[in-house]
This record gives sequence, structure tokens and C-alpha cells, in this order.
Amino acid sequence: MTKIRAAVVGYGNVGRGVMASIRNNPDFELAGVVSRSPERVKKAVSGIPVMKLDNPSAWIEALRPDVAILCGGSKDDLPRQGPELCRHVTTVDSFDNHSRIPEYFAAMNENATAAGKVAVISTGWDPGMFSLQRVLAGAFMPGARAYGFYGLGPKGGLSMGHSDALRTIPGVRDARQYTHAVPDAIERVRKGENPVFEPGDMHTRECFVVLEPDADPAAVTKAIMEMPGYFAPYQTTVNFVTQEELDQQYQGFPHDGLVVAAAVTGNGNPALTEYRCLWGSNPEATANILVAHARAAVRLQREGRSGAFTILDIPPAYFTTLSRDELLKHWM
Amino acid sequence: MTKIRAAVVGYGNVGRGVMASIRNNPDFELAGVVSRSPERVKKAVSGIPVMKLDNPSAWIEALRPDVAILCGGSKDDLPRQGPELCRHVTTVDSFDNHSRIPEYFAAMNENATAAGKVAVISTGWDPGMFSLQRVLAGAFMPGARAYGFYGLGPKGGLSMGHSDALRTIPGVRDARQYTHAVPDAIERVRKGENPVFEPGDMHTRECFVVLEPDADPAAVTKAIMEMPGYFAPYQTTVNFVTQEELDQQYQGFPHDGLVVAAAVTGNGNPALTEYRCLWGSNPEATANILVAHARAAVRLQREGRSGAFTILDIPPAYFTTLSRDELLKHWM
Repeated sequence: MTKIRAAVVGYGNVGRGVMASIRNNPDFELAGVVSRSPERVKKAVSGIPVMKLDNPSAWIEALRPDVAILCGGSKDDLPRQGPELCRHVTTVDSFDNHSRIPEYFAAMNENATAAGKVAVISTGWDPGMFSLQRVLAGAFMPGARAYGFYGLGPKGGLSMGHSDALRTIPGVRDARQYTHAVPDAIERVRKGENPVFEPGDMHTRECFVVLEPDADPAAVTKAIMEMPGYFAPYQTTVNFVTQEELDQQYQGFPHDGLVVAAAVTGNGNPALTEYRCLWGSNPEATANILVAHARAAVRLQREGRSGAFTILDIPPAYFTTLSRDELLKHWM
Repeated sequence: MTKIRAAVVGYGNVGRGVMASIRNNPDFELAGVVSRSPERVKKAVSGIPVMKLDNPSAWIEALRPDVAILCGGSKDDLPRQGPELCRHVTTVDSFDNHSRIPEYFAAMNENATAAGKVAVISTGWDPGMFSLQRVLAGAFMPGARAYGFYGLGPKGGLSMGHSDALRTIPGVRDARQYTHAVPDAIERVRKGENPVFEPGDMHTRECFVVLEPDADPAAVTKAIMEMPGYFAPYQTTVNFVTQEELDQQYQGFPHDGLVVAAAVTGNGNPALTEYRCLWGSNPEATANILVAHARAAVRLQREGRSGAFTILDIPPAYFTTLSRDELLKHWM
């Protein structure tokens, strides 16, 4: 069997997760890593080609990837890299800025279509699996609204974006933010109320902050509580901890979530569906889902398809290595 | 907008559920009901064309359906009706005899392909949504085994097949069987043990039996306990009740289930996904999913596709009435 050659673009948490996932998917092989800072990456890996990002033709000719898995961030990296790279190679990414997905899809679709390439965008667990579950719930239960909750476990889910936001506040040396779902809000959805929530009704935010030596705790707390969008709409708690406490008790990237939707069928009978996921490592979970979508992207490309795709546009059998016979016999 | 004209083939619990679901899906209209016993159906419905099943050309010409939703049983009806009807019209069915899905798919695929028709088979919640969740879990978490559990709620889930089996026993006038998931078995899967289960490890069976006046309870209990496949492998309890108790306390068709899969990602981090559904009415749930698949079948047909399809072969966006713009803007 010829393996799928995947280039990993971006050597961050997701990129390293993709490299680990490729080792667990025997139909894949790592073509190489592409980075803005190849010298830094070369210090961390061995036996793997590492190329500089800025000349796509050069690394695509050298690595000959069937697919490039774009692991950069959605704020600065992907809006620039995606539309450029999809002119040259089949791509997959986890662009997760929900409000900007329409414009990102349009840019990717235009360039990928013109180049005859497939670009699978915005996949992972949310957007991605959660998008799929929302759409299926709505299609199979007309009138249902699907709700997403995050951080249902006792420790909650680590939010990278909110942790980064905390670290921009003067006086904050390091910080991590855990999101907690509000159990009563979940129960209201389960009961079929289809409630209208403000953001602060569904989640609370718990911050663990290490201060700079000269920082004023009251000023930092005020700055956090008043940060629009990130914290102001939420019930927020701020805990000051030492760097040692943060490093020992709040490491890793755990996250979890729930998509829940309730409606009635036919003669007023209750109907409820829930999709739940729990990840010891959020970036590794995203990475695993990216690799399965890379498999689908290569299949679509080989069929002669082109343009931008989301998880909603791909037949689920494309994600698996299982044959149609195996699927019909053991998985239906 | 031209509505999708659906013919409902078979006026049982699922067929009535489909008729109710069509009323809740504004892009559909009911073309008519097709039955082996149209006179019986005409007594129950009004204002709806009812046609006799045995001459497909006649009812297809009269009703002009875009799709026929086949609501017959998997044991006797669908193996005969499906391969015949898919020569004439786009079809959707919920064939659910898991071990015979490969041969049913082959028969439907051969005839539908020859006729240039689309036949979506074996959909509902299991097979159907559960098949999809199993395949996604396996694709996104290599090494995960997906397990199906049924009857997690306090009353358990009503099994029609097992209730029918009870009613074949001499001395049984009426009966209903509720399946219960074994909570410890679910917890073992959640912990990532990927255990090897015998059927009796995952579920127990609870029977509510109304005896004929002259029946011997001990003999009936023995016959139940020793029934191979249905009850012999399971921890089974038999409760004798009056017809009045059965009618009052054990009516309706509630069912629920769970697909759960656990694995590790990358560097040994735990990963767990669960899909849970709870239905006040099992046949209405199946009906709702059938209608969404009928929408997809018509779209595939209009694209010029042909042959047999399962939920694994259909892009999820085909199930919904939402436009691509709406999906990208609000559902991703």
C-alpha cells in the first residue's frame, strides 16, 4: 500500500499532535515539517526533513506531500497561509474563529477551485465534530436547537484563548483559565425548554494567575473582570497562585464538551440527543481529527474534486481506512 | 419551492411516525400511503390517497412520489419489497437485521444501479446514527472500540423483537420486554479497558408477561429463560402482571441508547466520545431519521447518482434544508 505523505505545517501543540497521530495511523507517513523557524524545529526533532515555510514551491517539490496539514493559529497564521497554500497542495486545517468561517471558506474555495485542489477547512472537535452533531440534531429533530457546553468535568476545560488573554494583562506573569459549564443550564436544555441564553448563563470562568512581584492583585482582578467578551459577561473567579502551583497542578491541555439538543417527535414524544467528548489533550484530539480529514481530503483529490469542504460536505466513510465490505459487515 | 413528494410504504408504527414527521418537515408533502391492506388503512386515515402495494407501476404512476419511504419489517417485508421497489423509485428504508446488511446492500445496490435509482438503506438510530458514531469514533481515535448500550434509563428500553418473541410462547397472552444496560460495563468502557464482552455482560432483560388463564407460570418462565439468543445468554427477570397493569404501566415505545468509545491520543492522553439518545417513541425517532434521509436520497437522485447508500456514504449537509451559507454562518 502506498502511504499518504503528509506535511505538517507549524510546529506547535497541534503540529506535534499531528506528528504523534501520524505514527498511530499506519496508512500515513510524515513527509516533513514546515515552519517559519526551521532552525528551532531542527533542534527538537531528528530524522525528519524540516523546511522553511516561506517558499511553498520549494518545500512541496522537496517533500512531495499528498496533503499539507495546516497547524497554525486561526488569528494570524491560517488567514494568510491557507489561501496561499491551497493553490499548491491539498490542505486540511482547523480554522476555528467561528464568526469568520464564511469568509475563510470563500477565500479557500476560490483559490482551491482555481487550482484544482481540495481544501478541507475548520475541522477538529469544535468546529468539526460539534458542527456535525449540531446539524444532525437539527435535521433529525426539526425544531431542536443544539447547544454546546464546555468544561463539564470537575476541573473544567482549559481555554487557550482565555489563558492567552489573561497573559496580556499588565502584572500577570503566567495564567491559565478553566471554563466550567453551568449544570442547571444543561438540565434546562435536556428538559426541552430550548432556552434563550446569554453567554454568561451557560458557562463560568475560573482563572489561575501568577502575578509579577510588583503587581497589584486588586488592579489585576479588576482588569480581568472588566475584559469585554472574554470575562465581563461571565461569572468569573480569580485565584492567585505561585508559578510552582500553576506548573504542578494546572498543566496539560484537558478539555471536554457536550452538544445537546431536545425536541419532540410525532405525537409529542420527547427526543434528546447528546454528543460528549473528553480529551486529556485538546491539541492531540484536534490533531487526530485533522489526520482523518487529511485521509478524506486525499480521497476527494484523487476523485478529481476541488474547492473548499467542511465536515458537512464529506461522506463519513471517507474518514476511515475500513473497506465498504468491512463497514457493512461489522460497523453498521 | 417544490415540495418533496414522499410515499409511505407500510402503515405500521414507523409508517405512522413518518406521516407525522412529514407534517413537521415543511419541504415535504405526503404523496400517499401504500399498503398490502389498503382497505384497513382507509378506515384509519382520511384525505390521503391509499394504494395497494402489489403493483408498483400503478401506485407510482398515480402518486408520482419523488421517494418511497419503506416502513415494513426487516424480517419479511423489506427483503422482498426493497429490491423490487428500488427498480422503480428512489427508496429509503430502515433495514435493521445487522447480520444481513451486506446481502441486503448487495441486492439493493445491484437493482438500484441497473435502474439508475438511489436506494438509501439501513437508517434510523441503530443502524444509522449509531453506525455513524461508531465509524467516526474509530476513525478519529485509532485503536478505539465503539460499544453500543441500550436501555440506560430507569425503565430501560422497550425491545419490540424480544416482546414479539415472548408472545410466541404457549401460555403467554401478552408481553413486553425492557432491556437494561449494565452500568458497570459502561464504566469499564469509559475507563478505556476496551473489554471483550459476552452479550450477557452488557445488558439484562426484564419481562412483563400476561398469562393465559390456564397457563403454568413455571413452565412459561422456563421457556423464556431457555430461549436461545433472545434470553438464555442474559440475566433475565420475569414478572407476571395483569393485562390492565401491562396496558397502564408499560405502554408506548420508549427506547434509548449510548455509543461509547475510549482510547488514548498522542502521548497517552485519555480520549472518550459518547453519543447518547433518548426517545419517547422509538418508531417516531426512526421515522424522523428516515425523512431526513429521504431528503438526501432525492438530492443524490437529482445529481444523477444511483445504487445503494448508507448513512456513511452521504455528506451530512444533504440531510438538512439549511443552505451552505446558513451552515457556514450559524452551524459550524
